[in-house]
Amino acid sequence: MTDRVVTASVVIIGNEILSGRTQDINLAHIAQRLNAWGVRVAEARVIPDVEEEIVGTVNAARARFNYVFTTGGIGPTHDDITADCIAKAFGVPLVVSPEIAERLRRRPAPDDVMENRLRMARIPDGATLIGNPTGGPQGFRMENVFVMAGIPAVMQAMLSTVGNEIEGGDVVRSRSVTAYLGESQIASALTDIQARYPAIELGSYPFYRSERYGTTLVMRGTSEKDLARMLEEVKDTIIAAGERPLADK
Amino acid sequence: MTDRVVTASVVIIGNEILSGRTQDINLAHIAQRLNAWGVRVAEARVIPDVEEEIVGTVNAARARFNYVFTTGGIGPTHDDITADCIAKAFGVPLVVSPEIAERLRRRPAPDDVMENRLRMARIPDGATLIGNPTGGPQGFRMENVFVMAGIPAVMQAMLSTVGNEIEGGDVVRSRSVTAYLGESQIASALTDIQARYPAIELGSYPFYRSERYGTTLVMRGTSEKDLARMLEEVKDTIIAAGERPLADK
Repeated sequence: MTDRVVTASVVIIGNEILSGRTQDINLAHIAQRLNAWGVRVAEARVIPDVEEEIVGTVNAARARFNYVFTTGGIGPTHDDITADCIAKAFGVPLVVSPEIAERLRRRPAPDDVMENRLRMARIPDGATLIGNPTGGPQGFRMENVFVMAGIPAVMQAMLSTVGNEIEGGDVVRSRSVTAYLGESQIASALTDIQARYPAIELGSYPFYRSERYGTTLVMRGTSEKDLARMLEEVKDTIIAAGERPLADK
Repeated sequence: MTDRVVTASVVIIGNEILSGRTQDINLAHIAQRLNAWGVRVAEARVIPDVEEEIVGTVNAARARFNYVFTTGGIGPTHDDITADCIAKAFGVPLVVSPEIAERLRRRPAPDDVMENRLRMARIPDGATLIGNPTGGPQGFRMENVFVMAGIPAVMQAMLSTVGNEIEGGDVVRSRSVTAYLGESQIASALTDIQARYPAIELGSYPFYRSERYGTTLVMRGTSEKDLARMLEEVKDTIIAAGERPLADK
């Protein structure tokens, strides 16, 4: 039986990530959340706040993957150009959302400040709004593209509201086990195990901790039965190599 | 005077990053280190351990940017396919490096373990070796593509050895200042300042901390003189909005 595979691309928009000034933590959060909904992140891109980059990347991604999730660039300042770019990518005008404008106007401000704030009310024609539990800038959805904030707490709040809009496929489960041994000691056995379970992805992730090399073996796939069997085979391999299989930490 | 701009793409190879299981910290480190050498990271991609993805991504990136830095997939297990893919991307065979093989053979091991270990001696024909201070898997350089480990400590050690091989351009410097105010309060003034300094990139990065919204204004460019002037203008803008300019934390 073939898995029903639903994929997503994550597009991280922001010069501050590319300069190394800010450590992105949005990708890992989005990947974990989507995985639980049956959506597999198939690629991620980090791109600068440059119109042609954003338009080109989003158009390539939305054609290739079931969903696209962007982060960053939806605030009120000159460097917040994501809404403009998404409109351009879809070939539609930017329009003022009466719903967002009404909300922004609730909090009083001088005219010039309000004018800046209202930049955040502009969304591509045809977009629908993403839930906004934090009251920050407004995220929106345009077809299969979800446009979210860059601030992690705000992004996470937005993402938590869109689960019912996502049509996921088969959910990928994982099992893992760790051992303090060199990968070369078990590489042949792992190759054999992988060959016997082609539908389960077996990854070996070496690490260096407490002055010792070790590796964590991670199995990912949709069949609980195969995962359980494969895990036993991997544990047996570790034991045969003279080490103890440890719970992954 | 136009900046001499040298660019790089960072290609992060690894299913574990895309699944959200592992938090990538290599991009930020590479970006900061390259920036000091006068190389600007212009994009980053996170891609799965899939041959056609790696080959296609590396070939697109090496044609478009001055340098490409990859992380991940150079160990001895079945899921370590980066060396094979780089060879394929360049259309050259994989060859055994006598230098690496000699080093790997120094540490005794049973035949089958040694055979696995020797997988790490295979490099694309024509590649040169990257310094290997940790004794882990071997990184290599093929033309403008630097292939490094995924383990952060090992990657960092490798990267620290290649500075003299990089021909950088003008170095981008940055200044930053933080204020507890909403971006909308100063957005118009920032737009005006940005217009007066087109060669300096002015970013506004909002945050939510200690139950207050604030923003950090970051200026990036090659002219120290313009950076100093712009910083003063941004500080004056913050003061005019009734807040204090704070050192960026």
